[in-house]
Amino acid sequence: MRYDNQLTQILKVQYPIIQAGMAGSTTPELVASVSNKGALGTIGAGYMSQEKLEEEIQSVKALTTKPFGVNLFVPGHNDYSPQQVEHMNAWLKPYRRAFDLEEPTVNITEEQQFVNAIDCVIKYQVPVCCFTFGIPERNIITKLKQANVILVGTATTVEEAIENERAGMDVVVAQGSEAGGHRGSFLPNLQHQQSLIGTMSLVPQMVDSISIPVVAAGGIMDGRGIVASLVLGAQGVQMGTAFLTAEESGANDVVKQTILNSKETDTVVTNVFSGKSARGINNEFVEAMMKYEGDIPPYPVQNQLTNTIRKTAASNGNKEWTHIWSGQSPRLATAQHVDQLMDNLVKQIEELVRIVG
Amino acid sequence: MRYDNQLTQILKVQYPIIQAGMAGSTTPELVASVSNKGALGTIGAGYMSQEKLEEEIQSVKALTTKPFGVNLFVPGHNDYSPQQVEHMNAWLKPYRRAFDLEEPTVNITEEQQFVNAIDCVIKYQVPVCCFTFGIPERNIITKLKQANVILVGTATTVEEAIENERAGMDVVVAQGSEAGGHRGSFLPNLQHQQSLIGTMSLVPQMVDSISIPVVAAGGIMDGRGIVASLVLGAQGVQMGTAFLTAEESGANDVVKQTILNSKETDTVVTNVFSGKSARGINNEFVEAMMKYEGDIPPYPVQNQLTNTIRKTAASNGNKEWTHIWSGQSPRLATAQHVDQLMDNLVKQIEELVRIVG
Repeated sequence: MRYDNQLTQILKVQYPIIQAGMAGSTTPELVASVSNKGALGTIGAGYMSQEKLEEEIQSVKALTTKPFGVNLFVPGHNDYSPQQVEHMNAWLKPYRRAFDLEEPTVNITEEQQFVNAIDCVIKYQVPVCCFTFGIPERNIITKLKQANVILVGTATTVEEAIENERAGMDVVVAQGSEAGGHRGSFLPNLQHQQSLIGTMSLVPQMVDSISIPVVAAGGIMDGRGIVASLVLGAQGVQMGTAFLTAEESGANDVVKQTILNSKETDTVVTNVFSGKSARGINNEFVEAMMKYEGDIPPYPVQNQLTNTIRKTAASNGNKEWTHIWSGQSPRLATAQHVDQLMDNLVKQIEELVRIVG
Repeated sequence: MRYDNQLTQILKVQYPIIQAGMAGSTTPELVASVSNKGALGTIGAGYMSQEKLEEEIQSVKALTTKPFGVNLFVPGHNDYSPQQVEHMNAWLKPYRRAFDLEEPTVNITEEQQFVNAIDCVIKYQVPVCCFTFGIPERNIITKLKQANVILVGTATTVEEAIENERAGMDVVVAQGSEAGGHRGSFLPNLQHQQSLIGTMSLVPQMVDSISIPVVAAGGIMDGRGIVASLVLGAQGVQMGTAFLTAEESGANDVVKQTILNSKETDTVVTNVFSGKSARGINNEFVEAMMKYEGDIPPYPVQNQLTNTIRKTAASNGNKEWTHIWSGQSPRLATAQHVDQLMDNLVKQIEELVRIVG
C-alpha cells in the first residue's frame, strides 16, 4: 500500500498513524518509539507544568530525530461556585478518609499554563502541536504558524471541524463516539448525546465538508480499523487505547490490566473524574458519583478535587476508584512493545489491502 | 470486486447488502426493487397484522422472483401499570386535543401476532426471516429451520451476538450506535449507554467472537461505509436510512424531507415514541416528553398511546410531533430511485477498491 498522502506529507511521517496525546499516560519512550517506527508520537501535555513539558520534550529529542507532537488542552470558561466545591468535597470525604488524604485547594492556572506550553513548543521547535477542548485564539495560532509548527485540531462534529479549518488548523482529528478519554467537544448548545457521533458516521460526513486532511479516531485498534478509516475518506488515524496498553506507555499496571480484561460494554461517558466528559471503564466511583451528575464542578476544578484520590487508588492497584480511560474496543487491546505493535499494524494493513482488491 | 462470500451464498443474493426492515416504512415496491437489483429487500413487518403481512408478501412476490426477507419484532415482557397509562394519557392530552383524537385502548396482542407472522413466513416460503428485540423461542426457530427459512438475528453487543449464534441464527446483524430506528438490544443489566457501541468498535469485536457471518449496520450510507464494513470483517451491510429516503420507500414526505435536511448532530436515542429506545431526529415531542423519561410505559403500550398522534402529525406535514427515525449520517441521505441508489453504491464500491489496492 502507498501511504504517501497529504497527511503524511504535512506531518513528515511514513505511516498515517498518530499516537493520541493521552494526558498523564505518555512517556518519552512511548512517544519516541512511535516516531522512530514512522508514525507520529505525541506528548500528552494536558496536565504538564512548563518545567515538566520542557523535560519531556528534551527526553523525546534525546530518543528520536523523527517528528513528534505535543497535545494541549485549550483553556475554557469554568464557572463554578464555592458551594459546589464544598458539596463535592463532602461527597469525596469517604474516599479521602480511606486513603488518609488532605482536602486540596482549587487553583485555576490553565490559561497561564497553556501560554507557557505554547512558548515551549516554539522554543524547542516541536514539529506538531495538537489541540483538544477547543481552538486557540488567533494570536496563538499566528505565533505557532510563524514558527512553522503544524497544527492539529480536534472535532467531534462537522461544525467543529469547519471551525477548525476556518481557524487555520492544518489537520483535524474526527473524534468518534467510540474514542476513549476526554471528549474534545467544544461547541455549545447540543445535548450531550448529540455530539457522540460514531466514527463510521462522523468521518465521511466530515470529509465531505472540509478541505484539510481528516484523521479518524475512535474504536481504531488494528489494521482493520486503519484501512476502514482510509476507505471512509480519512487520510490517517489517531489511536489512543491501542497505545495505552503498550509496554512503553506510562499508564499504571492496574489501568493496563483492567483494559486488557474489559469488554466493549464496559465503558461509559462520564464527567465525574475531571468535570469534562470522558469515556472510560465503568467502576464503583462512577456509579457512586453519577448520582450527583448535574452537580459536578467543571474542569479543571473536579479534576483537582479528585486528583489525589485517583492517583492513590491507581498506585494501590485499586481499579474501582480511579479513571481508566478506554475506547469501546478493549477486546482488541494488546500488551506489546511499540515496535511489535507497529509491525503488526503494518502487516495487517498490507494483508487487508491484498484481500480487498 | 468479488462479492461472493458466505453471506451472499446463504442469502442467495449478488450483493452483500440488506435493506433494513423498517417497520411502517417499507412498501412492496421498495422491497422488490432492492431484491431485483441483487440485494436483499425486507418487509418491515414489526407492526403488521396477519392479513396485512400476507398481502405484502403476495405483492412482493408479484414484483420479484428474487429472495427477500420479513423483519419481525420478537415479543418481550411488558410490565406496566394502569396508573402509568393514565399519567401518559394526561401528558398526551394536548396533542390529542390539537388533532381532535380519541384516547386509545391499550391492547397487547404481540405474542399472537408474532406466532401468526411466523406461520405466514412458512406458508408463503419467505426465504429470509430477520428478528429484532430478541431471539425467538426454540420451537419457533426449529419450525422455521425445518421450512428452510434463513434466520437473521440482531445484536448490539458481542454477548447478544453469541446468544444469537447459540440459538441457531444463520447470520447476525451488528447494530452499531449510529443506526437509526429501534435499538435491537435485548440483554438486560446494562446501563442504556453501555449498549450503544459504535460500528467501528462493534464489528471487529463481534467478528472475532462468533463464527456465523456478521452484517454491519449503523451509519452506512454509501460505498465508503460498505467497503469499510467489509474491511472491518463484516460479510455485508444492512442499510436503513439510505433506503428510507428512496423514492420507493413508504415513509411520509415530511419524514424524507426532514432527514434530507438534517445534520449528524440532529439525532437522539429516545423511548418517548414507542416505549423502546430508538434513534431519530430530535423534535418538539421528544424535548417535551423527555421530562417523563423514567415514566414512559414500555413497548408496545407507549407505541399504541402515541400512534394516532404521530400518524396524524406526519400526514399533516408536522415534523415536530412524529417520529423521524434516522441514523447519524443524514448528511449522506439522497432522494433516488432504488435502481439508481444501487447502481451508485456498486459504482462507488468498485472505485474504492481500485483506490485502496
